[in-house]
Amino acid sequence: MNIKYANRMKNIKKSFIREILKVAQNDKVISFAGGLPNARLFPVKKIQAASNKVLTNHGKNALQYSTTQGFLPLREYIANRYNTVCALNVSPDEILIVNGSQQALDLLGKVFLNKGDYVVLERPGYLGAIQAFSMFEPVFKSIPLESDGIDIDLLRKYMNSNKPKIFYTVPNFQNPSGISYSLEKREQTANIIKQTDTVIIEDDPYRELRFTGKKQPTIASFMDNKSVLLGSFSKIIAPGLRMGWIRANPEIIDKLITVKQAADLHSNNLSQRIIHQYLTDNDIDTHIKLISKTYSYQKDVMIDAIKRYFPKEVKYTTPEGGMFLWITLPDKMDSMTLFNKTVEKNVVFVPGLPFYTDVIENNTFRMNFSNSDEDRIIEGIKRIGEVIEKLQTDI
Amino acid sequence: MNIKYANRMKNIKKSFIREILKVAQNDKVISFAGGLPNARLFPVKKIQAASNKVLTNHGKNALQYSTTQGFLPLREYIANRYNTVCALNVSPDEILIVNGSQQALDLLGKVFLNKGDYVVLERPGYLGAIQAFSMFEPVFKSIPLESDGIDIDLLRKYMNSNKPKIFYTVPNFQNPSGISYSLEKREQTANIIKQTDTVIIEDDPYRELRFTGKKQPTIASFMDNKSVLLGSFSKIIAPGLRMGWIRANPEIIDKLITVKQAADLHSNNLSQRIIHQYLTDNDIDTHIKLISKTYSYQKDVMIDAIKRYFPKEVKYTTPEGGMFLWITLPDKMDSMTLFNKTVEKNVVFVPGLPFYTDVIENNTFRMNFSNSDEDRIIEGIKRIGEVIEKLQTDI
Repeated sequence: MNIKYANRMKNIKKSFIREILKVAQNDKVISFAGGLPNARLFPVKKIQAASNKVLTNHGKNALQYSTTQGFLPLREYIANRYNTVCALNVSPDEILIVNGSQQALDLLGKVFLNKGDYVVLERPGYLGAIQAFSMFEPVFKSIPLESDGIDIDLLRKYMNSNKPKIFYTVPNFQNPSGISYSLEKREQTANIIKQTDTVIIEDDPYRELRFTGKKQPTIASFMDNKSVLLGSFSKIIAPGLRMGWIRANPEIIDKLITVKQAADLHSNNLSQRIIHQYLTDNDIDTHIKLISKTYSYQKDVMIDAIKRYFPKEVKYTTPEGGMFLWITLPDKMDSMTLFNKTVEKNVVFVPGLPFYTDVIENNTFRMNFSNSDEDRIIEGIKRIGEVIEKLQTDI
Repeated sequence: MNIKYANRMKNIKKSFIREILKVAQNDKVISFAGGLPNARLFPVKKIQAASNKVLTNHGKNALQYSTTQGFLPLREYIANRYNTVCALNVSPDEILIVNGSQQALDLLGKVFLNKGDYVVLERPGYLGAIQAFSMFEPVFKSIPLESDGIDIDLLRKYMNSNKPKIFYTVPNFQNPSGISYSLEKREQTANIIKQTDTVIIEDDPYRELRFTGKKQPTIASFMDNKSVLLGSFSKIIAPGLRMGWIRANPEIIDKLITVKQAADLHSNNLSQRIIHQYLTDNDIDTHIKLISKTYSYQKDVMIDAIKRYFPKEVKYTTPEGGMFLWITLPDKMDSMTLFNKTVEKNVVFVPGLPFYTDVIENNTFRMNFSNSDEDRIIEGIKRIGEVIEKLQTDI
C-alpha cells in the first residue's frame, strides 16, 4: 500500500512552534514561545451573557447553515469601526468573515498564487503567512526590517525586478519582531505598490494593542483597490472562537467568497453572533485599554529583566504595542543551540529559523510577553541570560 | 490596476446553489433546494445548557487557542462511537476535528491532489466535493449510480485505466441521489480499491438518519490503511457550529494536521467543547430517532405527492434515509427550463447540472425533503407537477 501525496506536501515542514507548544503544556515550563493572549483577561462572563442572549432570542437561526460572506450585522460593525476609528471608508460588502486571520491567508493564497509566483515579505516574516502561502508553492523574497519598517529602497528594487503577486506586511507591532512602520514608510510603501500589479496584504491583528507612540494610519488608507486588509478578534476578545475578517474591494471579496465556500461553506454562525452580541452590549474600547495596559506592563518587565540579566551585546526591539519582541544575539551565537540549553532549564522561546525564507539569520529569536505574569517573566529571562553568558564563554 | 488571480480561479464557477438560496430566503418561496436540516428539531435549550456549563467550568480554556487536531475528549467520543455503533476499531489519534465535512474535502484535496490527477466519483456526484477538489485542478471521471450503488464493472475498469488519486463516495443516502450501496457493493468496492494505490474518501454525514432497511457497515470496515472516513455533527446536532471530523490512519492524519494548521490553526474551541458537553449530558440516539422519524414522514409525504401530482413518466428514487431524493424527467425535458418556470411559481429545487462533471444529464434534479413541512411539500410538488405537465404538452 503506497500512499501518494501531492507534490506540495514535500515543501511543508512540520511547524516547529507546534512542537515547542507541546513542551510548553507542562506547567513547570516558562513559555515565551506561543503567541497566546493572556487568558485571565478573556471576558468569559460577558461572552456567556452574549451566548445566552443569542441562543434565547435567535437559537434556531444561530444553529442553522448561514451565508458564506458572514453575519451581516457583524460585517456592519466591522465596517463602521474602520470608518470611525481608522478613518477609512468601508462598506459591509467589502468584508468577509473568516476563521481567524490564518484562514484569510489560506484563502488569499488560493485566489492569487500560482506555483512559482513571487511573494515579497518582511525579514523576519510572520511564520503563519509563510506556512499558508507555502501550500501554493510560491518563491519567497524577504526584505529586511529596519527599526521604522521595511527597507524602502530594497522594496522598490524587488517590486520592479520580481513583479511579485503579493506583498505581505504586518505594519503594526509586527510578528515576530515587534517593529512598527513609521508614517513616512507607510505612505512610501503604498506609493511603491500602487505603481505595480502587486496586491498588498496588510495583516493587522495587533493594531488596537498600542502602548506608546502615536496611532498610525493603515497602509490601506494610502492605497487603491489592490489593498487587502486583515483583522481579527483573537487578540481583542478571544482566539478560541477563531474569528477574523478580510477587507478588500468587492471584486476580490467575490473571488474569496467562492473559495471560502469550497473551503468550509461559512464561519461558525453561533460564534459570529456571540461576538456581535458581545460587541453590541459592551464597551470594547474599555476592554482593549485593559489588555494594552496589562501587556504594556509585561513588556516593561521583560525589557527591564533583559537589561538586567542579558549580556550587553544582546540586542532587543522595544515594541510600541502587540505581543512580541525580537532578540538578536552576537553574530556567532546560534539561537537553536541556546534553545536546546534553555529547554533543559524549563524555559522556551521561538528560535528565529521558522521566520526566515530565502535568507536566514541564526542568531535571533522571538519572545512573547503577553502570556506570562511578572514573576515568571523575570525568572525566565534570568535563566536564559545565564545560558547566554555560558555560551559566550564557550565561544 | 490589473488584478491577476491564480489560474485555478478560471475553473471555478460561482455556486448555482448559492444563487438559488438567495431566492429561497423569501418566505413566499417553497424551497426544496438547500440541504438544510429542519431547524425546529435543533436542541437549542440543551446546547445552551452545554454552553453555560463549558463557559462556567472551563471558560478561559474554551476561549484560548487550542491544538490543531482537536479537543481530545471529543475525539475520544467519536472514536468510541465508531467502535460501539459501527464495529470499527478507531483510536482518537485517527481523528482530526474539522469545520464540517466541507473543510475535510478541502484539506484532503490539498494533501493528495496535483493538477491533472484523476478523481473518480459517483454520477451524479456531491457538489461540495466537486467544488472543493476543483481548486486543485484534477480531472474528474464519474461512474453511474445504479439503484444499489455504483456500477461495479465500470469502477473496476476506471481504477485500472486511470490510476486515480482519489475515489470519492457517499455510500449512505447519497447527496444528491438518495441512493445507498448494498452490502455486496460495499465489499466489492473495498476489494477493488484495495488492489490499487487509490485513496478512498467515504463521506458519511447521513449514516445515522436511516428510516428503513438494514443498517450497513462502512466501506472502511472492509478497507486497509488507505481508507479516509468523514463524519459530521451538522445533520444530527446543528450545522451552524461547523463541526465534523476525518478518520484516517495516523500517517494521513499527520499530513492533514500540517495542512489544517496552515488553513486556520484549529477548529472553534468553544464549539468543540459545547458539542462534547451536549453529547455527554444527553442521549444522542433519542434525538437521532426524532430527526429520522420526522424526515421519514416528510419523505413519505413528498413521495405520495409525487405519485399524485407528477406525470407517471417521471422517475424518482426512494431513499432509505438522509435528506434528498432524485428526480429523472423524460429524456427530452430540461430541468433548468423547468426550474426557470417553477421559480415564477415560487418553488425551487436544484437542477442536476452542478452535480455532473465529465458527463451531464440535463433531465434530472435534486429535491430536499428535510427542511419543509407537510403542507408546503404537497403544495410545492403540486406546482412543479403542473409545470412538468405543461412542458410535456409543449414538447
